[in-house]
Amino acid sequence: MDRATVTEKIIAAKVKDGLRWADVAQQMGLSKEYATAALLGQMKLTADQAAVAKRVFGLDDEETAWLQIVPYKGSLPTAVPTDPLIYRWYELVNVYGLTIKELIGEEFGDGIMSAIDFSMDITREPHANGDRVHVVMSGKFLPYKSY
Amino acid sequence: MDRATVTEKIIAAKVKDGLRWADVAQQMGLSKEYATAALLGQMKLTADQAAVAKRVFGLDDEETAWLQIVPYKGSLPTAVPTDPLIYRWYELVNVYGLTIKELIGEEFGDGIMSAIDFSMDITREPHANGDRVHVVMSGKFLPYKSY
Amino acid sequence: MDRATVTEKIIAAKVKDGLRWADVAQQMGLSKEYATAALLGQMKLTADQAAVAKRVFGLDDEETAWLQIVPYKGSLPTAVPTDPLIYRWYELVNVYGLTIKELIGEEFGDGIMSAIDFSMDITREPHANGDRVHVVMSGKFLPYKSY
Amino acid sequence: MDRATVTEKIIAAKVKDGLRWADVAQQMGLSKEYATAALLGQMKLTADQAAVAKRVFGLDDEETAWLQIVPYKGSLPTAVPTDPLIYRWYELVNVYGLTIKELIGEEFGDGIMSAIDFSMDITREPHANGDRVHVVMSGKFLPYKSY
Amino acid sequence: MDRATVTEKIIAAKVKDGLRWADVAQQMGLSKEYATAALLGQMKLTADQAAVAKRVFGLDDEETAWLQIVPYKGSLPTAVPTDPLIYRWYELVNVYGLTIKELIGEEFGDGIMSAIDFSMDITREPHANGDRVHVVMSGKFLPYKSY
Amino acid sequence: MDRATVTEKIIAAKVKDGLRWADVAQQMGLSKEYATAALLGQMKLTADQAAVAKRVFGLDDEETAWLQIVPYKGSLPTAVPTDPLIYRWYELVNVYGLTIKELIGEEFGDGIMSAIDFSMDITREPHANGDRVHVVMSGKFLPYKSY
Amino acid sequence: MDRATVTEKIIAAKVKDGLRWADVAQQMGLSKEYATAALLGQMKLTADQAAVAKRVFGLDDEETAWLQIVPYKGSLPTAVPTDPLIYRWYELVNVYGLTIKELIGEEFGDGIMSAIDFSMDITREPHANGDRVHVVMSGKFLPYKSY
Amino acid sequence: MDRATVTEKIIAAKVKDGLRWADVAQQMGLSKEYATAALLGQMKLTADQAAVAKRVFGLDDEETAWLQIVPYKGSLPTAVPTDPLIYRWYELVNVYGLTIKELIGEEFGDGIMSAIDFSMDITREPHANGDRVHVVMSGKFLPYKSY
Amino acid sequence: MDRATVTEKIIAAKVKDGLRWADVAQQMGLSKEYATAALLGQMKLTADQAAVAKRVFGLDDEETAWLQIVPYKGSLPTAVPTDPLIYRWYELVNVYGLTIKELIGEEFGDGIMSAIDFSMDITREPHANGDRVHVVMSGKFLPYKSY
Amino acid sequence: MDRATVTEKIIAAKVKDGLRWADVAQQMGLSKEYATAALLGQMKLTADQAAVAKRVFGLDDEETAWLQIVPYKGSLPTAVPTDPLIYRWYELVNVYGLTIKELIGEEFGDGIMSAIDFSMDITREPHANGDRVHVVMSGKFLPYKSY
Repeated sequence: MDRATVTEKIIAAKVKDGLRWADVAQQMGLSKEYATAALLGQMKLTADQAAVAKRVFGLDDEETAWLQIVPYKGSLPTAVPTDPLIYRWYELVNVYGLTIKELIGEEFGDGIMSAIDFSMDITREPHANGDRVHVVMSGKFLPYKSY
Repeated sequence: MDRATVTEKIIAAKVKDGLRWADVAQQMGLSKEYATAALLGQMKLTADQAAVAKRVFGLDDEETAWLQIVPYKGSLPTAVPTDPLIYRWYELVNVYGLTIKELIGEEFGDGIMSAIDFSMDITREPHANGDRVHVVMSGKFLPYKSY
Repeated sequence: MDRATVTEKIIAAKVKDGLRWADVAQQMGLSKEYATAALLGQMKLTADQAAVAKRVFGLDDEETAWLQIVPYKGSLPTAVPTDPLIYRWYELVNVYGLTIKELIGEEFGDGIMSAIDFSMDITREPHANGDRVHVVMSGKFLPYKSY
Repeated sequence: MDRATVTEKIIAAKVKDGLRWADVAQQMGLSKEYATAALLGQMKLTADQAAVAKRVFGLDDEETAWLQIVPYKGSLPTAVPTDPLIYRWYELVNVYGLTIKELIGEEFGDGIMSAIDFSMDITREPHANGDRVHVVMSGKFLPYKSY
Repeated sequence: MDRATVTEKIIAAKVKDGLRWADVAQQMGLSKEYATAALLGQMKLTADQAAVAKRVFGLDDEETAWLQIVPYKGSLPTAVPTDPLIYRWYELVNVYGLTIKELIGEEFGDGIMSAIDFSMDITREPHANGDRVHVVMSGKFLPYKSY
Repeated sequence: MDRATVTEKIIAAKVKDGLRWADVAQQMGLSKEYATAALLGQMKLTADQAAVAKRVFGLDDEETAWLQIVPYKGSLPTAVPTDPLIYRWYELVNVYGLTIKELIGEEFGDGIMSAIDFSMDITREPHANGDRVHVVMSGKFLPYKSY
Repeated sequence: MDRATVTEKIIAAKVKDGLRWADVAQQMGLSKEYATAALLGQMKLTADQAAVAKRVFGLDDEETAWLQIVPYKGSLPTAVPTDPLIYRWYELVNVYGLTIKELIGEEFGDGIMSAIDFSMDITREPHANGDRVHVVMSGKFLPYKSY
Repeated sequence: MDRATVTEKIIAAKVKDGLRWADVAQQMGLSKEYATAALLGQMKLTADQAAVAKRVFGLDDEETAWLQIVPYKGSLPTAVPTDPLIYRWYELVNVYGLTIKELIGEEFGDGIMSAIDFSMDITREPHANGDRVHVVMSGKFLPYKSY
Repeated sequence: MDRATVTEKIIAAKVKDGLRWADVAQQMGLSKEYATAALLGQMKLTADQAAVAKRVFGLDDEETAWLQIVPYKGSLPTAVPTDPLIYRWYELVNVYGLTIKELIGEEFGDGIMSAIDFSMDITREPHANGDRVHVVMSGKFLPYKSY
Repeated sequence: MDRATVTEKIIAAKVKDGLRWADVAQQMGLSKEYATAALLGQMKLTADQAAVAKRVFGLDDEETAWLQIVPYKGSLPTAVPTDPLIYRWYELVNVYGLTIKELIGEEFGDGIMSAIDFSMDITREPHANGDRVHVVMSGKFLPYKSY
C-alpha cells in the first residue's frame, strides 16, 4: 500500500457514492481547496480531519494513517498537462510568466510569491454573458536578501 | 527584424531609462498586466497604444508596426520554468492541478476556465507578518456541450 | 477502479462483440464523434446516455457512474503520437500551424478557435481516384480583449 | 542565406507594408492556405508563383530561387506548441486522437488520411452567439494493403 | 484484455514452441515482413489469416478477434530506440535523412515516399567477406499538389 | 568557420546555380547517395573529390579542407524529424522496428545490420498507379560473438 | 543588450585580468556566494555594489544598470547538468532527495526549506587524506498551513 | 521480488507503526541521513544493520538479504523533481550551480566535490523569526590530474 | 512471461542464494562480462550455457528457452542513467566524446569502433593510494567506405 | 569571447594547417587523450602547456588565458549523441551498464569508478581480420562509506 492507492480508493468512493468535495471539506472544517488537495494526496491532514475522511470514504486504519503523512507532491502525469482545463492554467503561466515576474519585481523587488504560505479560493462569478471562474490567490512575498 | 528583436529593444530601453511598466500601462489606458504582456510580445496593441510605446521606448515605425501584429505567444525559454518566481506558479498548477479541475468540475460541470476571455490583477496585500502578493483572476467558464 | 479501467472494458467488449461506435452513438442520440470520445474517456455522458452504454457494453453500476464523471482528458500515450493515422494530424498542425495562425489572425484578429465550443464531423467523400476523408470542424472564435 | 532567412524577410515585409496573405494568394492563383504555407517555408512555389512573391515582398533573385526549392518542413519551435491558437489544434489531436482513429478505421479500415494529398479551407462562419472558425479538410484515404 | 496482451502471448508461445515467423507467414499466405508486423500488433489480419494464428499460437476466440482490429501502431518503447539493431536503422535515418530528402526531391519533386502504400523485403545476401542483410523497400511517391 | 558553415555555403550555391546532386556525384565518381551525404556534412571526401566540390560550388581552400575532415554526424535538428518525407522513414523504423529485429534475428542470429559497411541506392520505379521510390540497402551482418 | 551579454563581459574581464570572485565580493561587502551569483546574473545588486562591479570589470553605465535589475534566474544550459562538479550536486539531490524530504518532514512537519530566505557558505576543510569541500546551508523552514 | 518492493514494504510499515527514521538509525549505529537513504534503497547495509531493519520493519530473510545488496541508485521519479521540498534543492543547484563551480574552482582548482566520500547532517536551527533547516555537507575534493 | 520476468527471477535467485556472477560465468565457460550481460537480458546464451543457468538459478524449461532468444537490448531505465557508478561512464562519454572521436579519426580515418565485434575486461588494479578499476576494451575498427 | 570561441578557433586552425592532436600533445608533454580533451575545452592547461597551444594554433593572449581556466565540461550537443562513433560508446554504457555495475559491485562493494582520478589510453591493436581500437581505462575505486 502507498499513498497513491489511498487516493485512488478515495476517488473511487467519491464516484460510487456521488460525494462532493465541498461537503467533505466542510465536515473537516477546511476550505474546499485545501481539503481536496489533501484528499488527492498533495497535503497532509490532522488526525481529526483524517477521521472525517475515514468515515466518509470508508477507509481502514492503515489507509487513514497514510492521510496524516507528508506526501510526495505533484498531481500531474506529465510535465505539460494534457487536460484542457489544467492546460489553460499552464498556458497562463507560459503566456503571462514574464509579465508576472516583471510586475511583482516592480512592486516588491527581487523575490517570489510563496507557494507554501499560500491560499486559494475558487468561486463562481455570475455574469450576463456566461458565468466566470473567479480565483483569488494570496501568497506571502519572500524577498531575496543579500548576505 | 522580428517580434523578439522589438521586445529586446523595449526591455533594454526600460532598463536604461529606469521606466516602470505600471506607468507605461497607465499612459496606454490599459491594466498593467495586459500592457506588460503586450510589450513583452504576448498581446497585440492598437495603433494608439503602440504610439505610446513608440514614444516611451524610442521605437521607429517598423518596430511600432510589429506591436500591432498578432504575436506567436509563449514567454518562457523552457517547458518547466527555471526562474524561482515563475516556477512557484508552475508548482501551483502541478500541486493544485487536479484540485482545481475537481472543484471547477463540481461547480460548473465539464469545461474550462478560459485563458482568453480572461483578466488578472496583481496587487500588494499589506500584512503584519510580511506583505503578500494578492492575485485575482477571472476567466469565463466555457462548457463542453455534447453534439 | 478508475476511468481507464472502464475504457479498457468498453473497448474489449466492442472487440469481442463486434460493435460499431456509430451504432452506439445513434442509440445515445449523439454524433459519432462526441459519443466515441466520451466512451474513450474524453467526455462525460448524461445519465441517459450512460444507461445506453451500460446496456450495450455490459457495464455494472459503478462502471456506469464513472461515465458521468468529468474525466482527465488526453488520449495519447506520447506527446508526439506514434500511430501513423494520428501522426498525420499532428503533422498537419506542425506543417500548417503558423499558416492557420496567420489566416485566423488575418480574418478575426488576435484570439483562438475554441476547442471546447467545438464540433467535428468526419465523413467519407467518394472520389474517382480513391475516396477521401472529409472533415468539418467548427469552433467558436474567442478574441483576446484588452483590459 | 537559407530558407529561414527568406521566410523572415517575407514576414518582415508583410508587417512593414501591411500586406494580407489572402491578397497575395489571389495574385498567385492559389488558395490562401497553400500560399501562406509556401511563403512560410512549408511548400514550394512554381517559378510564376515565386515571381509574384518576388514582386510583392521585394525579394532578390537568390531569395526567389529559394522559394522554388523543396523545403525542410515543420513550422513550430517546440514539439508541443506554446501559442494558444496552435495549441488548441494540438489539443484536438490529443483529446480526439483515438476517436478519429477509431471512426476512420470503422468507416475505411486500416490506413490513414493523407496529409500530402490534402487540402484545407478556413473560413468565417457567422453565428449569432459569436462567429466561428469553419474548417474543411479533405485528405485521401490510403489503405494499408497486405503483401 | 488488450492488443498488447495478445502480442505478449504470441511471442511467449513462439519462444516456448520454437516457432519461426517465416513459417507462420507462409501458412498465412503473407510475406514474412507483413505477417510478423501484424503478429506483433502493427497490422491487422483478415479472418482467415487470424485463424491460422489462432491455431499456431493457441489463441482463444477473443484473442483471435483482437488480431482483426485496426491496432494503435508504434512498436518501440522509446523515441530513440536503445536496441543496437534497431538503432542502426534510426541512425541511417539520422545520418542519411537530409540526403534521402534531397535525392527524392531532385528526382520526384516535393512529396513523400509512402509508408502506407509500401512493401519491404529482407533477405540474406551471401558475400565472401561475411553475408549481408539485403533490404528492398518500395513506397509510392505521393506528391504535394498545390490547391 | 566550421563544417556547418561550409554545408550552408554548398546548399546556397546549389540553390543559386540550380545544380543537381546526381550530376556533382557523377563528376566525383561517387554514388549520388554517398556524395550527397558527404556534401551535407555526413561523410568525408578524398582530396580529389573535394577538388571537384571546390570547383563546382566555388569554395576556397579552407572550405575545401573541411570537406576532407571526419565530420560530427547527424543531419536532423530534432530526435523525431518533423519533415514529412523524413518522418515516414522514422515511422517505418518505429512501426517495423521489432519486425526487422525478429526477422534478421531469425535468419542470422544475434547481431546487427551494419550502418557503416553499408550502401544505399534510391531509384524511380515506374508504376501504372503512380511511380514508386525504390530503395535498396545492403549492410553487412555483424554477429555478437561470446567471449 | 541583455543580462546575458553583461554576464559574458564580466566573465571575459575576469579571465583576462585574472580577478578572483572572493576579492570582488569583499569589495562589495558581500559573501562570495551571493556576490558571485549576482555577477553571474542570478541575483541583483544595489547601486553601491554595482558601482564596485562597474569599476572592477570596466562596465559602462548601461551595463551597470542591468546589474540592478531583477534577473531571470537559472544558470544551467540543460535540465540535467553535464559539468561533473555541478552534476555531483544534482546527484546528491537525486540520491538523497527522498531522504532529505523524510528527515525534514520528521523534524518539522510538512513544508519546505526555503531557497529564498537562504544562505550558503563554501569553505576548505583541511584533512589528512585530502582536503574537503565544506558547505553550510541555512534555509528557513516554511510550513504548509491548512486554510 | 526486487529492491523497490522491499522499500515499499519498509515505508508502509513505518506509516502503519508510526516509526521514526532517526530512532531506527540510532539502533543501527548510523547517522539518520545514511540510514534513511539505505532504507529507501539508496545505500547498502551491513548484516548487523540489516538485522535491525528486519526486526523493526518485520521483514523476512529474503527481504533482509536485499538490504545488503548494492542498489541501483536514484530516488526520484522525474529528472526535475515535482515535490516542492525536493525541488527547492534542485533550484539551488540550478540557480547557484555556476557559482558553486566558480568558487570551488577558485579555491581548489579543477576537480569536483565528491558525492561518494561524502557526509551530510541536517538539523534544526532555532531562530526568532522561524526555525531554519541547517545543513552541513562535507565532500572530499577530487582534483583532475593531467596525464 | 517475457524476458524481463526471467531477468528479475535470476536476480532474485542470486540475491537469495548469495551467488556470484563470476562463478556462474566460469561454469558457463564465458567471461564474466559476457555472461553477466546475457543473464541480465542483453545477450543470448547457447543451449549448454542456458542449461547451466537453469541449474544455478532454478529456472523452468520455458524460462530457460527465453535465455536463448535474441533479446531487445538496453539495460537502463532512463536515457541519462541516475545510478552514480553508471553515470560516471556516461560522463566519460560526454566529457571525452569528441576527444575519442578525434583520436580514433586521426589514427584510423572515418569510421567507428564496433560495439558488436567487441570485448571488455574489468579487473582490480592494486594501488598504494587505493585500488583502481582497470578496464580493457577492444572493438574492431569499421571504416566508412565510399561507394 | 568565451571558451567555445577559443575551441572553435583551435579546431579551425587544426583543419587549416593539417595539424595532429598527437603531435601537439607531445609538445605539451601530455598524453594525447588529456591534451585533446583540454584543447576541446574539457580540461584546463598549465601556463606552459597553454603557451604551446598559443604558438601552435596562433592564439592571442586573451585566448591563451581561457585555456588555463576551469571549463564548464560536456562536449556533446545532445544527451544521446547522434554521431555513430560516439553513439557506440553510449550504447556500450546502455547495453553493459548494469553488467558493469554488478561486476564492480561484486569485486569492490558499493562505490564508483572515478571519472576524475582517471586516465585513458586509446591505441591501434593490429589484427589479421582488421585492426582494432584498444582502450585502457583506469579509474580509482571510491567506496561509499557509512557514517
